[in-house]
Amino acid sequence: MVPHLVTALTGPINELEQRILESTPVIERWFRLEWMEHTPPFYCSVDVRNAGFKLAPVDTNLFPAGWNHLTPEMIPLAVQAAMAAIEKICPEAKNLLLVPENQRDSFYLSNLATLQKIFYMAGLNVRLGSLSNEITEPTRIDLPDGGHVTLEPLQRGKRRLGLKNFDPCTILLNNDLSAGVPGILEELHEQYLLPPLHAGWGTRRKSLHFKAYEEVSKRFGKLLGMDPWLINPLFAQCGQVDFEADAGLECLRSNTDALLTKVRRKYKEYGINEKPFVVIKADNGTGGMGIMTVRDAKDIDKLSPKTKARMATVQAGQAVSEVIIQEGVLTHERINSAVAEPVVYMMDRYVVGGFYRIHADRGEDENLNAPGSSFVPLAFEQSAQLPQPGVKPGASVPNRFYMYGVIGRLAMLAASYELEATDPEAENLD
Amino acid sequence: MVPHLVTALTGPINELEQRILESTPVIERWFRLEWMEHTPPFYCSVDVRNAGFKLAPVDTNLFPAGWNHLTPEMIPLAVQAAMAAIEKICPEAKNLLLVPENQRDSFYLSNLATLQKIFYMAGLNVRLGSLSNEITEPTRIDLPDGGHVTLEPLQRGKRRLGLKNFDPCTILLNNDLSAGVPGILEELHEQYLLPPLHAGWGTRRKSLHFKAYEEVSKRFGKLLGMDPWLINPLFAQCGQVDFEADAGLECLRSNTDALLTKVRRKYKEYGINEKPFVVIKADNGTGGMGIMTVRDAKDIDKLSPKTKARMATVQAGQAVSEVIIQEGVLTHERINSAVAEPVVYMMDRYVVGGFYRIHADRGEDENLNAPGSSFVPLAFEQSAQLPQPGVKPGASVPNRFYMYGVIGRLAMLAASYELEATDPEAENLD
Repeated sequence: MVPHLVTALTGPINELEQRILESTPVIERWFRLEWMEHTPPFYCSVDVRNAGFKLAPVDTNLFPAGWNHLTPEMIPLAVQAAMAAIEKICPEAKNLLLVPENQRDSFYLSNLATLQKIFYMAGLNVRLGSLSNEITEPTRIDLPDGGHVTLEPLQRGKRRLGLKNFDPCTILLNNDLSAGVPGILEELHEQYLLPPLHAGWGTRRKSLHFKAYEEVSKRFGKLLGMDPWLINPLFAQCGQVDFEADAGLECLRSNTDALLTKVRRKYKEYGINEKPFVVIKADNGTGGMGIMTVRDAKDIDKLSPKTKARMATVQAGQAVSEVIIQEGVLTHERINSAVAEPVVYMMDRYVVGGFYRIHADRGEDENLNAPGSSFVPLAFEQSAQLPQPGVKPGASVPNRFYMYGVIGRLAMLAASYELEATDPEAENLD
Repeated sequence: MVPHLVTALTGPINELEQRILESTPVIERWFRLEWMEHTPPFYCSVDVRNAGFKLAPVDTNLFPAGWNHLTPEMIPLAVQAAMAAIEKICPEAKNLLLVPENQRDSFYLSNLATLQKIFYMAGLNVRLGSLSNEITEPTRIDLPDGGHVTLEPLQRGKRRLGLKNFDPCTILLNNDLSAGVPGILEELHEQYLLPPLHAGWGTRRKSLHFKAYEEVSKRFGKLLGMDPWLINPLFAQCGQVDFEADAGLECLRSNTDALLTKVRRKYKEYGINEKPFVVIKADNGTGGMGIMTVRDAKDIDKLSPKTKARMATVQAGQAVSEVIIQEGVLTHERINSAVAEPVVYMMDRYVVGGFYRIHADRGEDENLNAPGSSFVPLAFEQSAQLPQPGVKPGASVPNRFYMYGVIGRLAMLAASYELEATDPEAENLD
């Protein structure tokens, strides 16, 4: 379920929010039935933007880091969800192998320490197996908070992956495989490898995700009797763009123009006095790389060489050729004066917490996942102890975070559809 | 999992506690495997006593009230657990019928409002169907906190139970059936009735529960390589006691004497300088009725007429003839100067929270579940954000409440064994 957390937005609850809050039993039952048919991703984080008139996911991460930003109160929720997940996958498991990114900054390592703690409390011995060639023996790294992590070299047998004297039942990836799938992770048929390899950015495309999300939002819109656009960012895509060679920019321009026209029409329909914008992103990119905001299609003709170079490659040096053009969703949330967007964390089918990503130097129509961003934990709402008279049980305090949890889970459901569609083993069955 | 809560006891962690804290992954895996073989009771609360040298359950309630004493931070844990429970039992459910005790005090009604909120957030329409003849139409009762509950008359069809225009998939009892099983709840084969009727005090016996717990504690003791007595209160029973007619008191006296001797021997073995005592309770009693503390078998000859009358009947006027004599477990916990005992709340297989029951006028060897008791919520531990250097992940702060959650779950597992043994449908299979 969704923890009752304080959100930054304190304005009145609008019609969309009211509709979601009123429909809790209907929504929860709908999710329950969906999860009977579809397997949730093992874990997931979703960036959500609340423009007031519109509430939508803008990024869905299937290898979430940042678990260290959850408050201590949220950890039991994560542990309970981890227990539920493990019980379904491998109830007899003693050992879990966690395979991290090859990053050494202390924020990321604190994230690993938190994940290790969560799965330890859920009843597993957890060790970290590094894909890095630099890790040739167990390497202890101390953390600023006094804790530490120990990275160990992976040991690959013919059929199993593990560490020295450590044979796991389940291997949990916290590495988004941006550089492709390393051979050491292939052909592991005896162990559970989660998330599956095709959840990595070698296979994933944002456009596939948002295509699946469009379907989810239509079904959800029908359930609640509302326009799915209120929760769905429109998008278009271009398959052959080369920023540095100025190739394929015509596709980008015409699609941007068409998308801005569509959004303008929607704004007019709802009487919204905002200037529409789109966000152009690498279709296979993550970590906030290869992203730009465009307010007018003509701007694409005027890209600076610096911007072009920045757009041309994403993490792990992968070249960008496929591009998604997505309707921009303003964020009206502020913490002090900084623009903020909520990030919702889920494990198994459960929302376990979240925090705000804030960026002091960015505008409300810009990507916040960029150097200079920081994180503000969400606190539990205290006023839940004081229900307001005359309101029905369970709805006594408007719980804005509940809506973020609903939107986060809709994106997680879309990820589940997406992974089904791209599953190489499912294709073999056709 | 077990929320990281502040407990009243701040003394050093002793050997037993250390053993439990160190064994988290082993313990959690053991529970995981047990729950593959046995179905947890739907919900459950367990009174735990921590004597320092010994940590044991003293009462296991299968129809727990007091959910209103959980803090707002614990509600999401309860909701998540409720979602997991409902998903297993009746995933398509829209409606849940809650059948309460015929109590009208506002604490109990606040408990109902909290349960209603938890299941509403888990995705169910929840309504309250009263067994009371006084409820002949929907009756709204306002609560001191500004909320309210509405009690409605039950409507029994040939095969189903519900309310007017309300047909539930699941019926949840929050009524311990002390007065026996009302006919209106019998022969409901189309709906899920939880907990089952044989969990009511018409069938339940404390001695059966503690017999099952003895078995659980032996297996757990073997797992951790420790003496099961450290978590198991010894007991004896007498089947034919009539306090008012002075009949069967010889059985009580000899069993009390034998039990005190056994406990004295154990105290000597462990070098414990405390005076042993036993607690004599009605074998089918609840709500703190029909209970007395005895320090010497001779005291049984000197019972006052008032005490005899008090012991002779329990709630709903049921006469007492079967009696359990249980090793008393001191509580060394204090809140301010009042004696306190933790109560652990569970739903499905999960510990979702707890609080302290305190009683200013009672001693450390007396029952605290009595008029005049009050409740102190447990708060989340903040120091979890500051792990101590040099300790292993997940074990950085001694989490005393974790141990209470382990003991609570052992008692819950015993209740599961107990319900299997008393299941009338299982007997038919023999």
